[in-house]
Amino acid sequence: MRTKRLCSIPLFGLLAACSQMPDSQSSRDFSPAPSEAEMKRVSPAFAHYTDDMVIGDLWHRAGLSPRDRSIVTLSALITQQQVAELPYHFNLALDNGVTPNELSEIITHLAFYTGWGNATAAVAILGDVFGERGIDNSSSPATPAQRLPLDEEAEAKRQQLVAERFGDVAPGVVEYTTDALFLDLWLRPGLAARDRSLVTVSALVAAGQPEQVTFHLNRAMDNGLSKVEASETLTQLAFYAGWPKVFSAMPVFKSVFESRGLIAG
Amino acid sequence: MRTKRLCSIPLFGLLAACSQMPDSQSSRDFSPAPSEAEMKRVSPAFAHYTDDMVIGDLWHRAGLSPRDRSIVTLSALITQQQVAELPYHFNLALDNGVTPNELSEIITHLAFYTGWGNATAAVAILGDVFGERGIDNSSSPATPAQRLPLDEEAEAKRQQLVAERFGDVAPGVVEYTTDALFLDLWLRPGLAARDRSLVTVSALVAAGQPEQVTFHLNRAMDNGLSKVEASETLTQLAFYAGWPKVFSAMPVFKSVFESRGLIAG
Amino acid sequence: MRTKRLCSIPLFGLLAACSQMPDSQSSRDFSPAPSEAEMKRVSPAFAHYTDDMVIGDLWHRAGLSPRDRSIVTLSALITQQQVAELPYHFNLALDNGVTPNELSEIITHLAFYTGWGNATAAVAILGDVFGERGIDNSSSPATPAQRLPLDEEAEAKRQQLVAERFGDVAPGVVEYTTDALFLDLWLRPGLAARDRSLVTVSALVAAGQPEQVTFHLNRAMDNGLSKVEASETLTQLAFYAGWPKVFSAMPVFKSVFESRGLIAG
Repeated sequence: MRTKRLCSIPLFGLLAACSQMPDSQSSRDFSPAPSEAEMKRVSPAFAHYTDDMVIGDLWHRAGLSPRDRSIVTLSALITQQQVAELPYHFNLALDNGVTPNELSEIITHLAFYTGWGNATAAVAILGDVFGERGIDNSSSPATPAQRLPLDEEAEAKRQQLVAERFGDVAPGVVEYTTDALFLDLWLRPGLAARDRSLVTVSALVAAGQPEQVTFHLNRAMDNGLSKVEASETLTQLAFYAGWPKVFSAMPVFKSVFESRGLIAG
Repeated sequence: MRTKRLCSIPLFGLLAACSQMPDSQSSRDFSPAPSEAEMKRVSPAFAHYTDDMVIGDLWHRAGLSPRDRSIVTLSALITQQQVAELPYHFNLALDNGVTPNELSEIITHLAFYTGWGNATAAVAILGDVFGERGIDNSSSPATPAQRLPLDEEAEAKRQQLVAERFGDVAPGVVEYTTDALFLDLWLRPGLAARDRSLVTVSALVAAGQPEQVTFHLNRAMDNGLSKVEASETLTQLAFYAGWPKVFSAMPVFKSVFESRGLIAG
Repeated sequence: MRTKRLCSIPLFGLLAACSQMPDSQSSRDFSPAPSEAEMKRVSPAFAHYTDDMVIGDLWHRAGLSPRDRSIVTLSALITQQQVAELPYHFNLALDNGVTPNELSEIITHLAFYTGWGNATAAVAILGDVFGERGIDNSSSPATPAQRLPLDEEAEAKRQQLVAERFGDVAPGVVEYTTDALFLDLWLRPGLAARDRSLVTVSALVAAGQPEQVTFHLNRAMDNGLSKVEASETLTQLAFYAGWPKVFSAMPVFKSVFESRGLIAG
């Protein structure tokens, strides 16, 4: 069904729609995605790969749902501050079943994992998309009444490890890591833990920081991400974060897969 | 006093003011920060953390002055080309006591340490902020009449080390490193050496390049940065460069602190 | 001749021209480069280094042609999503002899090597530049009739190596690496293999990912890049990607030069 919906988008249609948006409807302007006509006038090569390989092939691959591909793609774009494609991909994510409040939580999560400025820019652009679609997310809870259950044993171990290593290096970081991230952000019910992990892993790969993928990919798989989904996340990121970052991340994915007995060591 | 001034800003007030700027006053448009109302409509979660945790808590922490937090934050934003928050933070930096010419020198320093294009974009945005505040920095010296004193022994050692390692790899880089950076940029009196070091260390962490933090953090501490200031720089960067980059930098900070006898090895 | 042409540009002239473009002629707005007057009002220091050191000196150095410097610079700017200087540098590249279709191929190449969103933004900006210069690239082939010859032995070895290491980690990545990159993109005749290598190496350095420079710098030199050109690529990147990224890349360049017997080990 989802794949069908994606198929039914006229090629470049949404892209063209988005690129007209800033001119006609929005008071917020930034370098937007080019229209179909402009793309073909400037770079028939890029239009061809965008059309046939990315929209026409990558997004229809098995192994990772269109919804998850949207989460991975948005995480990569926001991490890299690539705002031109954000209007298109916020719209596509909503069409693929990501809810408005999940988008809000994804951006909030990425504020902590990729820097506040990326999230600020993304909120402004998402505001335009919400405006056009008549979406108001203001009733979603700033602070949730209930939080997701905490794995207290794992968290105690994590706290001890971090405190031992860095407690006298940066006590402020250690405190916020516990209070803001692991006892607060990660327990917000607006985004499933498995999806937060998918966002985090995608952001780490897109930022070129594979060293912390080990912890977060294990956490993602503990939270339900399958091996084939993790693998297809890399395929999606090859296009949206670039080949080199994926090649730097693959050895880490490999050793996580090996340590979990999913591939031969 | 500084903290008071920060407190007196109505929450989101400056942010809202900035976000209207491009519409009404400036001919230079880019994706700006969202207004308070928009932020709450799109992501109550992000508005909550921005309000209560970042503006309401982080900026008031002891250990690093608001002026230094502004320097760290601007360095992170410019390094990561996160332009949406720049108008707000240029204004906040001026309110926190960073002088107009120090802003000019910070941008110039970051041109060399993070790439020319980041500085070009920042100068354009700072020009708008200066325009609104009636600031003209044109009388500051392009080339200073007097330079800061040089530690000739340390510089001779640095030159020898770099020439031995890279003299036959990239002689152009080696020459400019000496002539443009260490005998010129670093000796400009418009920004104290300690502040240049703070800018450099922040940029290295924000760029995800901890490998050169050892040299520059030692230099920063030789230039007067205290251990608690260095530590709080990491706390500030956790929010503005993202947690993963800070976790990649903490082992390097730790080994520098250890080598200087500031924490147990 | 090329150097002469560059010399004849009034200092800041093109820069000033570009900065007026979005106001008067284009419906696509983003934070553009500041005008000469604004740069001098905001940061005489930055204007001085831009004028005397970058435009007045770096671009005239021997060892790397202005055309190649344009390719390196554009690769660094697009990789880092530094859009403010792109209009200026697309124009300069055309003046320096890079053809319109080579620009199209460079952007397409960088889509794969630095992420789709960077290329989308660049195509939009290049569209404006083409529009002003009356350039229409729409007749260039989306899919070329003929491809460059393939070194089948080297490619078979590469395929085997990658399949052995990552075939069970991310089969999708492995497939696209072969089908999209090495049997397709790299064989497009619109950009010489040596130039693709120059783009790739520049992108890897600018992205802070020196680990894959070994493969691609060797490939670049196999494709005709000389040692002095590789060395001057680093000098150019020091300014456009920042000093730290170049210092992280120099040890890799050094070991490649050593392994090829170009410098003593």
